[in-house]
Amino acid sequence: MSKLESIYPEGRIVLREVGLRDGLQLTRRYPTTDAKRDWLARERVAGVRHFEVGSFLPARSAPQFADVTEMIAACRAQNVTSAALALNDRGVVDAVGSGVDEIVCVVSATEAHSQANMRRSIADAVALVQKTVRLAAKTEHRPMVYAGIAMAFGCSISGDVAADQVVRIAAACAEAGADVIGLADTVGYAGPDQIRSICADVASHIGAARLGIHLHDTRGMGMANAAAALDSGVRILDASLGGLGGCPFAPGATGNIVMEDLVFLCERKGFATGIDLDRLIGVRGIPAAEMPEEQLYGAMARAGLPDVSWQATGLQN
Amino acid sequence: MSKLESIYPEGRIVLREVGLRDGLQLTRRYPTTDAKRDWLARERVAGVRHFEVGSFLPARSAPQFADVTEMIAACRAQNVTSAALALNDRGVVDAVGSGVDEIVCVVSATEAHSQANMRRSIADAVALVQKTVRLAAKTEHRPMVYAGIAMAFGCSISGDVAADQVVRIAAACAEAGADVIGLADTVGYAGPDQIRSICADVASHIGAARLGIHLHDTRGMGMANAAAALDSGVRILDASLGGLGGCPFAPGATGNIVMEDLVFLCERKGFATGIDLDRLIGVRGIPAAEMPEEQLYGAMARAGLPDVSWQATGLQN
Repeated sequence: MSKLESIYPEGRIVLREVGLRDGLQLTRRYPTTDAKRDWLARERVAGVRHFEVGSFLPARSAPQFADVTEMIAACRAQNVTSAALALNDRGVVDAVGSGVDEIVCVVSATEAHSQANMRRSIADAVALVQKTVRLAAKTEHRPMVYAGIAMAFGCSISGDVAADQVVRIAAACAEAGADVIGLADTVGYAGPDQIRSICADVASHIGAARLGIHLHDTRGMGMANAAAALDSGVRILDASLGGLGGCPFAPGATGNIVMEDLVFLCERKGFATGIDLDRLIGVRGIPAAEMPEEQLYGAMARAGLPDVSWQATGLQN
Repeated sequence: MSKLESIYPEGRIVLREVGLRDGLQLTRRYPTTDAKRDWLARERVAGVRHFEVGSFLPARSAPQFADVTEMIAACRAQNVTSAALALNDRGVVDAVGSGVDEIVCVVSATEAHSQANMRRSIADAVALVQKTVRLAAKTEHRPMVYAGIAMAFGCSISGDVAADQVVRIAAACAEAGADVIGLADTVGYAGPDQIRSICADVASHIGAARLGIHLHDTRGMGMANAAAALDSGVRILDASLGGLGGCPFAPGATGNIVMEDLVFLCERKGFATGIDLDRLIGVRGIPAAEMPEEQLYGAMARAGLPDVSWQATGLQN
């Protein structure tokens, strides 16, 4: 069994908690390492198994991720999958040496965003994916490589993004050896029909099993887009507890899609997530206490589970 | 051209603003009649053409709707479609005499809810629909009759609701002469696959053109469910400005689906709504000022329109 199959078993739904990374990207404060470990441990008890826990960046530019290696160790201790971002050569080397289970590289869908955000071309970003894959292959623990394509459904700089551009970049990342290719609606421009059509296009080139989706609820389409992605065969979905994580281009806007609501959506669509929603909702107390100025989103936390049964036919995580 | 075709032109999308009725069902305060008229007039300028403006109930039990006849007159003055609820014999007589364009009757999907909510059987509720149709037919202005089926996707008393029960009741309402049959997710239990399947079943019996949907965002599935309804051919959708209107069975929960976000969903799915989103968002100031203690929901109001184009191929309203 390959690492991909063991971490992302085909056919099963994988919900990646990105609140400890993307969720802390723009917050005014961030939780202590102890609080982060508690958050991780309690979400694990609730049934979550995949966590993005930081970014390999200099501590002075991203102090909220200075504890990334401790968080990776916490994941190992909890027997859950750890993931962390590596955005440049130095980050990749550090990530490969850290023992993290999954290294996340970011490639922009547009040249303009790639230059503005990372000061490099799309081709250079794909080359870094390839380098990451090569370095990862030389290690004993063989980390997975997740290539996230930012602005895949519209760009705050370039506007519309052509579907074939996304397909081409996804195929290049796959060819570079990325295990998973994630399509990110970074600024919340996507609609469900667009999600369905682009996911189907990309899946036909790289296979649905390797395809992930990273959605923001900036314009309220999060759950509709997640439903469309699931309908297109996507089984790897990112979300964050309480929808933490804003949008740099729309201050005050809602952030990542809400994990609690996504769990309900998956279950309601027949996918067993293995996640206990009441327990998951209970974990919100940690970010609420550590970052009282941040708004937590989500309807399930207000309403609770309904008094009806529904059949979840997928396998348990 | 029949009244149905003139008010609900086939193929076009109809968004019914229910904030002035369902949105005021549970609020602690309610706007003055002048503020309601202003709300109506400004939403009309934004492009909304269908308004539920009250309920024919004794003023002492529902003081927020004591001005229902004035609001119906305001709709006529603004040349928009007025709708109001009639929940008993007396209400039906008053509604028929009021000159309202559309009378909304409510039928529960379960006997338990019908008895608890209205102290009558489902059969008696359908009989009232029939009586309304008969009385409406005797008038000169011929009001339309909209039969709303409450708890169609799950009941807070009875739990699961069988799809064939919903089909049977919808068919009975159609046979009783209702022009439109609306399926209501009264307590926000529905998921998108369930919406798609029940809407398709009901549409195959009564025709998609007569089918409406009334969704609550209680558990965050609102936009996903609206997308599923649109995919099933539903073209008559309820929503409320700012998502006003809570859930009596889940205090503090989110209410109706948010009109502003629904407009974005429709446009993103290729249906031209004829609604100017920036103007619509501006109308939120009225309920915000009149009911400052009520939370307004919605992501579009926070984020604004994206900087991309999308093609809306449907006809303008």
